[in-house]
Amino acid sequence: TRDHPPAHTALRDRLLAAVVACFKRHGAAAIDTPVLELRETLMGKYGEDAKLIYELQDQGGELLALRYDLTVPFARYLAMNKITNMKRYHVAKVYRRDNPATTRGRYREFYQCDFDIAGQFDPMIPDAECLKIVHEILSDLQLGDFLIKVNDRRILNGVFAVCGIPESKFLTTCSTVDKLDKMPWEEVRSEMVGEKGLSPEAADRIGEYVQLHGGLDLIERLLQDPKLSQNKLAKEGLGDMKLLFEYLTLFGITGQISFDLSLARGLDYYTGAIFEAVLLQQENDHAEEPVSVGSVAGGGRYDGLVGMFDPKGRKVPCVGVSIGIERIFSILEQRVEASGEKVRTTETQVLVATPQKRLLAARLKLISELWDAGIKAEMLYKKDPKLLKQLQYCEDTGIPLAAIVGEQELTDGVIKLRNVATREEVRMHFYIRFHKC
Amino acid sequence: TRDHPPAHTALRDRLLAAVVACFKRHGAAAIDTPVLELRETLMGKYGEDAKLIYELQDQGGELLALRYDLTVPFARYLAMNKITNMKRYHVAKVYRRDNPATTRGRYREFYQCDFDIAGQFDPMIPDAECLKIVHEILSDLQLGDFLIKVNDRRILNGVFAVCGIPESKFLTTCSTVDKLDKMPWEEVRSEMVGEKGLSPEAADRIGEYVQLHGGLDLIERLLQDPKLSQNKLAKEGLGDMKLLFEYLTLFGITGQISFDLSLARGLDYYTGAIFEAVLLQQENDHAEEPVSVGSVAGGGRYDGLVGMFDPKGRKVPCVGVSIGIERIFSILEQRVEASGEKVRTTETQVLVATPQKRLLAARLKLISELWDAGIKAEMLYKKDPKLLKQLQYCEDTGIPLAAIVGEQELTDGVIKLRNVATREEVRMHFYIRFHKC
Repeated sequence: TRDHPPAHTALRDRLLAAVVACFKRHGAAAIDTPVLELRETLMGKYGEDAKLIYELQDQGGELLALRYDLTVPFARYLAMNKITNMKRYHVAKVYRRDNPATTRGRYREFYQCDFDIAGQFDPMIPDAECLKIVHEILSDLQLGDFLIKVNDRRILNGVFAVCGIPESKFLTTCSTVDKLDKMPWEEVRSEMVGEKGLSPEAADRIGEYVQLHGGLDLIERLLQDPKLSQNKLAKEGLGDMKLLFEYLTLFGITGQISFDLSLARGLDYYTGAIFEAVLLQQENDHAEEPVSVGSVAGGGRYDGLVGMFDPKGRKVPCVGVSIGIERIFSILEQRVEASGEKVRTTETQVLVATPQKRLLAARLKLISELWDAGIKAEMLYKKDPKLLKQLQYCEDTGIPLAAIVGEQELTDGVIKLRNVATREEVRMHFYIRFHKC
Repeated sequence: TRDHPPAHTALRDRLLAAVVACFKRHGAAAIDTPVLELRETLMGKYGEDAKLIYELQDQGGELLALRYDLTVPFARYLAMNKITNMKRYHVAKVYRRDNPATTRGRYREFYQCDFDIAGQFDPMIPDAECLKIVHEILSDLQLGDFLIKVNDRRILNGVFAVCGIPESKFLTTCSTVDKLDKMPWEEVRSEMVGEKGLSPEAADRIGEYVQLHGGLDLIERLLQDPKLSQNKLAKEGLGDMKLLFEYLTLFGITGQISFDLSLARGLDYYTGAIFEAVLLQQENDHAEEPVSVGSVAGGGRYDGLVGMFDPKGRKVPCVGVSIGIERIFSILEQRVEASGEKVRTTETQVLVATPQKRLLAARLKLISELWDAGIKAEMLYKKDPKLLKQLQYCEDTGIPLAAIVGEQELTDGVIKLRNVATREEVRMHFYIRFHKC
């Protein structure tokens, strides 16, 4: 974990504000759940990653742990309150006992920004909105070119089935496929055959599918695929994928969407559409295709998770997206550093200053009236500061204006308003009624 | 701990926004420190309350605990980064293994809103600003009448000294005096004599002082007090208190300030000025004085805390204030409930609706254009919802407008904008280019 100094916090607050503005634009309500969850709530939801959960000491009372993400607490919240219908966002910190990779923006305490839609609705309408949200946020933040990969767990499972993989190996095969964004097919294949015990022929058959990516045309082609079209799950998934692309066409965002059969997503709880957004970078002028420089958003449909918390197992279908705010932050931070731009850490509009001694009372009186008028104002906490020091403070902290009150100004019932950058000054009527002190 | 549902979160976000706006108006920068602190950082800072600290299980690595307040992490942050000068605010959750008193807004996980000024400055200028901030926030929030009590630890210690209390008993006597806001003097006196082992005469002498409260006149009187004026600490404290009142007079807020010698504040780390704001209520029409209904802000000067974290013990004087946001929230919540006012949990401006079937594509196209224009818009996630259901959704969630697009509107290249409350409708040009689906 780490402290966030003011320049850091100011930049991150701006970033979070942009994300929250988008979530609100889509009509989401905010909820807040505690950082502490019962240990049993978190157990059995994250597969192998459960070892990364921070547990609290048993000091009497319930066994507690720090939340690992915001999705499981949301599902627990829906089940506990018997809510079957909700559009919510949640921006908060989560905790993982991971080895931090600080260069890539990975820490043990970090923000997640989640938007989720829970409820029984007509297919793919909420799913399409989640992708629209990712598209809006990444466009708003001007992070450069990006691509949103989409796939469907049902299509993947269908592929595994027609390639002759037993159902008991679907999840583990899925997590191997998930590595295709980081390693070439040859290595993924050898993990399938070696560690996961698939036959080389089955692996090769999988390879033919999972290296495909495209748009509506690919969906149509796979719907005609002699093997895949016979598989009920795959057919359902492909049908919904087609519907999704129709909706995304109406949203006008298919240019940044790719149906990518290699996308698998690590977590166990996804049941339908899955998606992940990556930033693209032209490696060099001669490269043909731009290269992914890392995932900045991800999500999908998880129709079974809420039911795990309901005593009667009642399901509430959910789809959601999580914005990878820390990754985006580290990109923006590097950009700010490279540009040499100075991030202001305060919003102060005016410094109340005096050019002579024995004018503290005038400054206190004036600044108090400015505060009461809603103006963001500061003064130095010294009885008799030098004017130069006061103007220097403006330059150091980026305060654009100085309101100067000296003996002459007091007599005339004015203040001098000075533009710190241009040194222009205007006199304004401002009568300060007080006794000197 | 508890979940915060949307109505709750929306109201609290508004409250926090008002507090943060005031902190920013006074030129504070935000910092953020981790929820997890080293256990040793927190130990020895909270006296008897240390038993309320949540500790994490030893899973390898450092011994960690959840933060108990925001002041100790701030002091640790200053020392670690060798910062000697900073004005910061921090709004975040803290954790205490307390028995929750939910009716009074006390939970195990709760928000603190802190504003602190660190640095070596001329006396009482930052202290006065802290009181101005409390005054502004309590006025802005329109919580009704309030009173800010101020005192100084040096004055209290001076009182104890001239009453013949040994220095080793100052802190424990202080925590007994602190109970004067909850129990009558007789009970406090018997605790002093019984549990704390003071002589009855010493207790009576203390009683004569700590029951005093007033303004500048009282300060002047105590400065002339034959015994107290001989005590160095008390004289210093009274001198600064006089200065504070001069500054508060310039701020025009002495009407809500009371110099109250019974104010002691529980925490060990205060070294100078201390303050606490209480809301006042007229018990009944015949009561003479309004009664305090609980503390809503508190703070003071702690010049020694940063030095505890510096290897060389270098001190950084600090003064700060904490706004009791949970208490204020529970008051506002009761008020909202009593008024029957419905808190909107979303900010949606318009619902995109259709009166006929087979118009999903038109709705998707229209809503996408609204989102891209920055308008907060929703639609129902159904292919063919009934118009009545759509308008009902507006009424349930407080959406003021419905943008209705039907077959006639599509042909005419318009939409109907309907005011949900008044049922007024206007037709607007809005050509939607799409194929039906």
